Amino acid sequence: MTSLTLYFTPGTCAQAVRIALEEAQAPYTLVRVDFASQQQRSPEYLAVNPKGRVPALVTEHGTLTETPALLAYVAQRFADARLAPADPFGFARMQEFHSYLASTVHIAHAHRPRASRWADEPEAQAAMQRKVPANMTECFTLIERHYLGDGPWVLGEQYSVADGYLFTVASWLKSDGVDIAQFPKVHAHSQRMAQRPAVQRALA
Amino acid sequence: MTSLTLYFTPGTCAQAVRIALEEAQAPYTLVRVDFASQQQRSPEYLAVNPKGRVPALVTEHGTLTETPALLAYVAQRFADARLAPADPFGFARMQEFHSYLASTVHIAHAHRPRASRWADEPEAQAAMQRKVPANMTECFTLIERHYLGDGPWVLGEQYSVADGYLFTVASWLKSDGVDIAQFPKVHAHSQRMAQRPAVQRALA
Repeated sequence: MTSLTLYFTPGTCAQAVRIALEEAQAPYTLVRVDFASQQQRSPEYLAVNPKGRVPALVTEHGTLTETPALLAYVAQRFADARLAPADPFGFARMQEFHSYLASTVHIAHAHRPRASRWADEPEAQAAMQRKVPANMTECFTLIERHYLGDGPWVLGEQYSVADGYLFTVASWLKSDGVDIAQFPKVHAHSQRMAQRPAVQRALA
Repeated sequence: MTSLTLYFTPGTCAQAVRIALEEAQAPYTLVRVDFASQQQRSPEYLAVNPKGRVPALVTEHGTLTETPALLAYVAQRFADARLAPADPFGFARMQEFHSYLASTVHIAHAHRPRASRWADEPEAQAAMQRKVPANMTECFTLIERHYLGDGPWVLGEQYSVADGYLFTVASWLKSDGVDIAQFPKVHAHSQRMAQRPAVQRALA
């Protein structure tokens, strides 16, 4: 099987894809994209991903982007690692959770570091940034109550690629001024994740 | 096969799921959620979907939300309708496109009608609304150049659930103050979609 190449920046949602690849024991090459020097906007990187974002995953068939798409792809490509439910409803529940993280929670967070995407005026950007803690608290209240049950993992007994995604997004709470300890199930989940060897390799 | 129930509001992204169900000739019941009377925030609807959003799809296994998850689920459940690529890379490309529409394009649009989600001050909301036409233009420029090729459909020769999603999101351009004719491939795609009997049933 051909090796994959992951374009990655530490601390971003690309970390969820790296965790998935480590859990799958997939052969892959890591290319670090340096946000500090705006490397994601360089002509070289825009040729890989015209969106100028991470992650991007280069495969033998072409390049894929968008974290939810990459997580499902890694789970399906390395099916022996059992990183996604095999039944259609279970797979859809996982996808629902990925989509909520990408389209609601990641966006709620992004209004702090990336407010300039949605308004030019500094006062408007500051107004968005002030609302981030309340919005992140609302999102994680819903995750705590609606998504995390009694099982150790997002989908219950079965560990899946969704766990690395939650772990990654939850790691942003501190910088957003929200105490993860308000959400006991999320907090315990993050501590459980930090013990996994694949997660430790992905953070190294 | 048990019937499905789609909670739906005309003009929202739930329309993409309705188009998918019509294309699949799926048995389903439609329940209209009235945004004008804030029905999406009623206790009855929050019991269906605690997020207070549409779409929601009730199945015999439980309720699913989030448009990208529902589109893939409908395509997989009604596999004979061939509404998604069967190969893993093709499926991932479709998912990438869904995720881009949900997490970037839908969000760019939402800063006009839903600016209050991200800032409390009216001046900040007005600043966000002013930037919507530029952001939607940037998104559709990328769709035109990067996603739409020579084929009649998003994925080329094969029609898929992604087409109903693009058609739905493109229908918001006019209210956002952006002329769809700037994007000839997107424009032709929307006209092609409007001719399909399933689309006409979904809009009825």
